[in-house]
Amino acid sequence: MNYKLMLRMLGRILQLEALLLLLPTLVALLYQESPRPFLLTLVPILIVGTLLSRLRAKADFFSREGFAVVGMIWVALCVTGAFPFWLSGEFATFWDCLFEITSGFTTSGATILADIERLPRGILFWRSFSSWIGGMGILLFTLAFLPKVGGRNQILVQAEMPGPLATKLVPKTVQSSQILYGLYIALTAVEILALSIAGMPFYDAVVSTFACVCTGGFCVLNASFAAYNTACQIIAIVFMILGSLNFALFFLILTGRVRQALKSDELRFFLLAAGVGSVLVFANILPLYDSIGEALMDAVFQVASILSTSGFSTTDYNLWPPFSQTILVLLMFIGGCSGSTAGSIKCGRLLLMFRCARRSILRLSHPRAVKVVKLDGKIVEEDKLNTIFAFFILFCILLVIGCVVVTLDGANLVTAFTTSLGALTNVGPGLDMVGPMGNFSFYSGPTKLFLSLMMVVGRLEIFPILLLLQPSTWRR
Amino acid sequence: MNYKLMLRMLGRILQLEALLLLLPTLVALLYQESPRPFLLTLVPILIVGTLLSRLRAKADFFSREGFAVVGMIWVALCVTGAFPFWLSGEFATFWDCLFEITSGFTTSGATILADIERLPRGILFWRSFSSWIGGMGILLFTLAFLPKVGGRNQILVQAEMPGPLATKLVPKTVQSSQILYGLYIALTAVEILALSIAGMPFYDAVVSTFACVCTGGFCVLNASFAAYNTACQIIAIVFMILGSLNFALFFLILTGRVRQALKSDELRFFLLAAGVGSVLVFANILPLYDSIGEALMDAVFQVASILSTSGFSTTDYNLWPPFSQTILVLLMFIGGCSGSTAGSIKCGRLLLMFRCARRSILRLSHPRAVKVVKLDGKIVEEDKLNTIFAFFILFCILLVIGCVVVTLDGANLVTAFTTSLGALTNVGPGLDMVGPMGNFSFYSGPTKLFLSLMMVVGRLEIFPILLLLQPSTWRR
Repeated sequence: MNYKLMLRMLGRILQLEALLLLLPTLVALLYQESPRPFLLTLVPILIVGTLLSRLRAKADFFSREGFAVVGMIWVALCVTGAFPFWLSGEFATFWDCLFEITSGFTTSGATILADIERLPRGILFWRSFSSWIGGMGILLFTLAFLPKVGGRNQILVQAEMPGPLATKLVPKTVQSSQILYGLYIALTAVEILALSIAGMPFYDAVVSTFACVCTGGFCVLNASFAAYNTACQIIAIVFMILGSLNFALFFLILTGRVRQALKSDELRFFLLAAGVGSVLVFANILPLYDSIGEALMDAVFQVASILSTSGFSTTDYNLWPPFSQTILVLLMFIGGCSGSTAGSIKCGRLLLMFRCARRSILRLSHPRAVKVVKLDGKIVEEDKLNTIFAFFILFCILLVIGCVVVTLDGANLVTAFTTSLGALTNVGPGLDMVGPMGNFSFYSGPTKLFLSLMMVVGRLEIFPILLLLQPSTWRR
Repeated sequence: MNYKLMLRMLGRILQLEALLLLLPTLVALLYQESPRPFLLTLVPILIVGTLLSRLRAKADFFSREGFAVVGMIWVALCVTGAFPFWLSGEFATFWDCLFEITSGFTTSGATILADIERLPRGILFWRSFSSWIGGMGILLFTLAFLPKVGGRNQILVQAEMPGPLATKLVPKTVQSSQILYGLYIALTAVEILALSIAGMPFYDAVVSTFACVCTGGFCVLNASFAAYNTACQIIAIVFMILGSLNFALFFLILTGRVRQALKSDELRFFLLAAGVGSVLVFANILPLYDSIGEALMDAVFQVASILSTSGFSTTDYNLWPPFSQTILVLLMFIGGCSGSTAGSIKCGRLLLMFRCARRSILRLSHPRAVKVVKLDGKIVEEDKLNTIFAFFILFCILLVIGCVVVTLDGANLVTAFTTSLGALTNVGPGLDMVGPMGNFSFYSGPTKLFLSLMMVVGRLEIFPILLLLQPSTWRR
């Protein structure tokens, strides 16, 4: 392992984090709140970061280091990012702070706060801003704006944004990152504008957008999106969906390849899931509503929120019939497209797994037929399929472990299962005690620490953290 | 498709079923109950079976026909087997009868009966006997005792008892079947003897054994195994475990290859699951009990019952803490070994999936390492691994579909999930409303029909029924 290089990269990231902390500092000053929690975090991080980034290291760098460094950086990011919360004195324990910021960076949107509106605006800004940074990735940010990190860039990008179908937009990784972040910033700007026009206060529009385009789910009001008007809710639906699409498709569309973009198998699968999910939930909850429009709005909003792994809500779906709840839980497993800001198993993986299953059925009745699995008309290598299966198995194992651990804290089956699933998929909220009107504060400190780790594991799509935890990674 | 040959085989199976129905007829006569329900079923089946078995057909027979014929035969077996229940007048609807007998043949042990003890002894005998037949397989029975079925025998055996690691004991399929049924009958005889010595009435000993060695779970008393003494419960544990082991191991042991048998990776995995499950549940439920012995007994019994996919109970584990309930649900996914009478995903498949996942992690850090997956020291082909993954994906899809369908009938999430899982894994009972003290009678007719199909799909390990439902199977 090239430890020096890893530490140097960590240093660069800490420097960047210090820079990013300037924004909430400014917000705090603007609203005449104390900037102390931010400054007390910012300065030490900047010093440590600058010292580390001066380390001299060879450029030897392999995929093993790539995964390990990404895992390490994310853990460091969450731990240091928790300090402004801790120093603000608004949180009961450091576990709470760590849980909340990890939920931010991983775009989970699970909260331990019962009364969100009580908090200073600077702190809430940092909470939502962390989602925005985490959505597209901190390393991608670094590559886009501070390219000289060192190491082989493509390895880092793949480790942070693995997806089943990672493709580069243009041959150069740095340029790719810049395009991706450019698109992301453009989406953000458009949504802030749209929400402001629709009547949302500017501060709310900014922080809601931060939590929306990254498919995060943090809201600054206790009632989540139910507090805003229908126009704002529709805008949120649109941008949650956009945030769940492969950003490479936007690039194709912008460069005139619209037909190629619309032919994407994964896009079709995602839209099919969103459409079928909405129709089923709508039909099922209709009898509970007086107005068809309201039922449709709640159904579509909730489906978009869960499928995109955001976790906003406009209603308490704990009160919906079991059928709709089951559909929502099912959508939690699906998630967005690869190359998006959404989490979970992702449409591309599921689609390929289904095609593999179909191939096996066909082989039984026609044993001699040699079949390949295709996506967008191209053959997918067996090695890639194996990695997808491995991902799915590890996902199931972690889901089960999470569920078992959480029951030790006294949660009932539905709460435990959806807590574990919500953390691993980065959806955030679940059902019952962790439903849209509940929060995660009742869990014990160790459970919150465990769930924080689960969220990071889910955000980095399992492999980087598993490699970190494996002794053989650290040998030699 | 060679339809004539398929019908001729169906004819043979119906003849066999008529023969098997003689046993409950005798039991009814012995207890001075009316043999009418059995005779009215037996005679038409015998006539139709004899007519069909006289069809002349070419011996062309491929694996596609093998799967289709096994699927068809199992559906026919369940439908015809329901008639004695229906004619007895003890069941409210034909759906109930179909559900109950399918639960029997598939060794699920889920029941729609609230008061079992009310039923005539002949009917209860048929109910338990159906589990016994289904446990080792009706086609295997036919091959063992009426070898001239026609068609390629090995194809049939593989379709009925697919398992991930099907191996023939001896080169000839017919001999293999005879050895398997010989072992099965020997186990049955020993358990009847043991239970009788332990103080169980002879009738109870026979029917309990039928439902135990096949890992079925039907009991003739409302209190299930809680009604019998500790010695009987221990005997049940031993035989549920034996029923969950690969019968090929018994053959190895009987032919002096004890060390080879004990080295089986799958056996070790199964015993590990049983051991860890028992310890965790025991530690968790201990505070609820006055006596350590009782807690240990209930923990081990329930773990053995669920892991072996039996579904007997000695206590109402609906009252256990969520941690223990989660462990039990987890055990439902595991099941027994391949080549056993137990259902579910099975230890061999899980073990291979875990090893594949580990391989993928290793490949990430050492990309150039070419790794193979081994079981019992032998390399497992990639094709076989792909089929296992396909099985697992289809299992998950069916589990989800089952869960969604059942919620339409008003079941809550826990009930719906464990109903679907219980049917697909052939464990039978689940949690909450379908827990050990509940039953399946509250479901609507269509749901009972659907669950019956799920149980058959689970018993035949998915592929045969899927092939039956696929239009391309029937073309040409």
